[in-house]
Amino acid sequence: MIDKNLDLLFKSIKPINRVKKIGIDSALNEILAENVMVEKNLPSFDNAALDGYAFNYSDKNSDIKIVGTIYTGDKNIYTLGKNEAYRIMTGAMMPKNSDTIVEFEKAIVKDDILKIDSSIKKNNAYRYTGEEVKRGETLLVKGELLTAAKIMFLASQGINEVTIYEKPKIASFSSGDEIIEPWEKASEYEIYNANSSGIQAILKNSNFKSSYKGIIKDTYESTLNALRNSGDYDVIITSGGASKGDHDFMKECLLELGYEEIFSHINVRPGKPTGVYKKDSKLVFILPGNPMAAFLIAFLIVVPALKQISGQNISNHKKIVARFDGNINLKEQRSNLVLGVYKDGKFKTINNNKFGSGMIKPLVVANALYVSKVGESKLEDGRLLEIIMLY
Amino acid sequence: MIDKNLDLLFKSIKPINRVKKIGIDSALNEILAENVMVEKNLPSFDNAALDGYAFNYSDKNSDIKIVGTIYTGDKNIYTLGKNEAYRIMTGAMMPKNSDTIVEFEKAIVKDDILKIDSSIKKNNAYRYTGEEVKRGETLLVKGELLTAAKIMFLASQGINEVTIYEKPKIASFSSGDEIIEPWEKASEYEIYNANSSGIQAILKNSNFKSSYKGIIKDTYESTLNALRNSGDYDVIITSGGASKGDHDFMKECLLELGYEEIFSHINVRPGKPTGVYKKDSKLVFILPGNPMAAFLIAFLIVVPALKQISGQNISNHKKIVARFDGNINLKEQRSNLVLGVYKDGKFKTINNNKFGSGMIKPLVVANALYVSKVGESKLEDGRLLEIIMLY
Repeated sequence: MIDKNLDLLFKSIKPINRVKKIGIDSALNEILAENVMVEKNLPSFDNAALDGYAFNYSDKNSDIKIVGTIYTGDKNIYTLGKNEAYRIMTGAMMPKNSDTIVEFEKAIVKDDILKIDSSIKKNNAYRYTGEEVKRGETLLVKGELLTAAKIMFLASQGINEVTIYEKPKIASFSSGDEIIEPWEKASEYEIYNANSSGIQAILKNSNFKSSYKGIIKDTYESTLNALRNSGDYDVIITSGGASKGDHDFMKECLLELGYEEIFSHINVRPGKPTGVYKKDSKLVFILPGNPMAAFLIAFLIVVPALKQISGQNISNHKKIVARFDGNINLKEQRSNLVLGVYKDGKFKTINNNKFGSGMIKPLVVANALYVSKVGESKLEDGRLLEIIMLY
Repeated sequence: MIDKNLDLLFKSIKPINRVKKIGIDSALNEILAENVMVEKNLPSFDNAALDGYAFNYSDKNSDIKIVGTIYTGDKNIYTLGKNEAYRIMTGAMMPKNSDTIVEFEKAIVKDDILKIDSSIKKNNAYRYTGEEVKRGETLLVKGELLTAAKIMFLASQGINEVTIYEKPKIASFSSGDEIIEPWEKASEYEIYNANSSGIQAILKNSNFKSSYKGIIKDTYESTLNALRNSGDYDVIITSGGASKGDHDFMKECLLELGYEEIFSHINVRPGKPTGVYKKDSKLVFILPGNPMAAFLIAFLIVVPALKQISGQNISNHKKIVARFDGNINLKEQRSNLVLGVYKDGKFKTINNNKFGSGMIKPLVVANALYVSKVGESKLEDGRLLEIIMLY
């Protein structure tokens, strides 16, 4: 973990544990809230893996008479007599007494008589009942993210509904007298609220939705009102109002409302003025006002926290190994968030990691992130790094 | 490209080029249909990068009098006299005649008199108008996928609406007499339609939506009717009905309806019986009935084709470099889709790449895919591979 403060955060999180049933067609990227057992053997009957002829391997040296065709979907049960075979289509049920398929391409057939080439092995192209999964086995477990393949797996079982965890209800705010919403018109001396759009998009990428509740003006009253009116939400995310300037009322108001501080800063740059507060099961994330910091902290810390709140069993970011391309120095007394471009196995920083800390453009150019540990003073060319893909 | 047939496909695709305007709050992962120019300099005025004191660097050796405070959001213009400084908050407008900030932590202040430490450099913590982007520059270009950072970049410009490409209208079917929908009840001798759920989930993961239109029974009439009734769709995706069994009416019906075959198979396993047909701007993908093959071909071929149809400027899969862990043989006369697990920089196949070709479980376990080239007969331990992440 980047900072021991974050350990405190992740230890203090309790999943909200509200569940609902939904159809599998809506369940992609949702989090399973139950163990799912195999209900149907896969395959559920012995069947042909290829189009060909089903026969009994003990007849392999005889002339075998082709007595009919079994089509996929035919529910009749056929039985082979001695030295008999059926033509059979992929997926069709094997006739009784058959144990092997010779595919059309390798079958020697003349006048409805089949001869078996010596290269054919017993049980060729024969799919056995339950060889993939057997009734009573565990198919999927509670806390799993439902990927596309898992949705397909559920469908193959005739499981059309699953119980999933509801996502936390999230309210998001921006704060600051200086910001204007993107749908308003800012003068030269005003800046647009980029943070809210960026944070909402990051949450959406991980299948979380926040209700945007507007800009909190820099007064004690408006901060207190905004927090008081968010009683229905599990999580509140604000940005701005967390640095050391004169006008930061957020902490004061949270303590007034009975929140407990988990931390008010982390040893990470950008992102230092990140605070997290807690009251019962409710969490408040105060992200930096600096857009780059707000974006990266939302990605790196808020999203995994939300996954954990949602009951997901794996909440940390997937990492890939890349070779560092370049040479940069790092401030070793803190963790540094190093933006870069991953390509062809290499990770390269943007402009040698030199750019304004409040910029958005480097985030647009980057596709990956390296998080340095405290004590790391440089990254040398050729070093292997574990990086996190942003996209 | 895996197979020259696929080159034919990708060369023949014409973007549908229908556009619409949407709010940026809905634009995540949509495809931009216009070039977007910078409208507002970023920063749009000279401002403080840190909380501190704004002064003129030529006064650095004098006693500097602190004459007031400039808060973030204050639109008044302040001017420094000789040997004067303002307290200033991060993001606040620099006073005229100032060129440098000394942050609170490094400022030497006593009785409203500021002294400057020799370690402070000229222009410290001073953000200049337009240093990130300048009015008239290109911000984003047509065909770009709108990532979270790009949404934030647009918001920072006060651009609240963008023109995006509409996605193709997609109809999907399954085919086969033997399959039962997951919401119905299959007997032991019937199998559930897993393909449709899997394919729809894969499309959804890439922000495409298909309308599922049901199972086409294995007759000429029902196949023809299904195709005829899909006139409103840009793309039709079916699975099943493409192998060499007796009951495959799909091709026959497509030719009857005036479609032209782009190809009826590809030299890939699993996935060989994949066909693509074309009529004017309309495409029909016939995916294999085998669930694993249907899933992988939807992921590997259909999704990039849909991106290209949608006007996305980059349609191919992102690849990462991994070290192969294991030793397996490949059939060199074709391209092999090798499922595996990527972890800690290594890629390892599932059960030494031995499992039934129609299974779904290996897809659930795998998180990455290697696509071998024709002529590759093995993968040796330690070899560097370019793999595609499935999730």
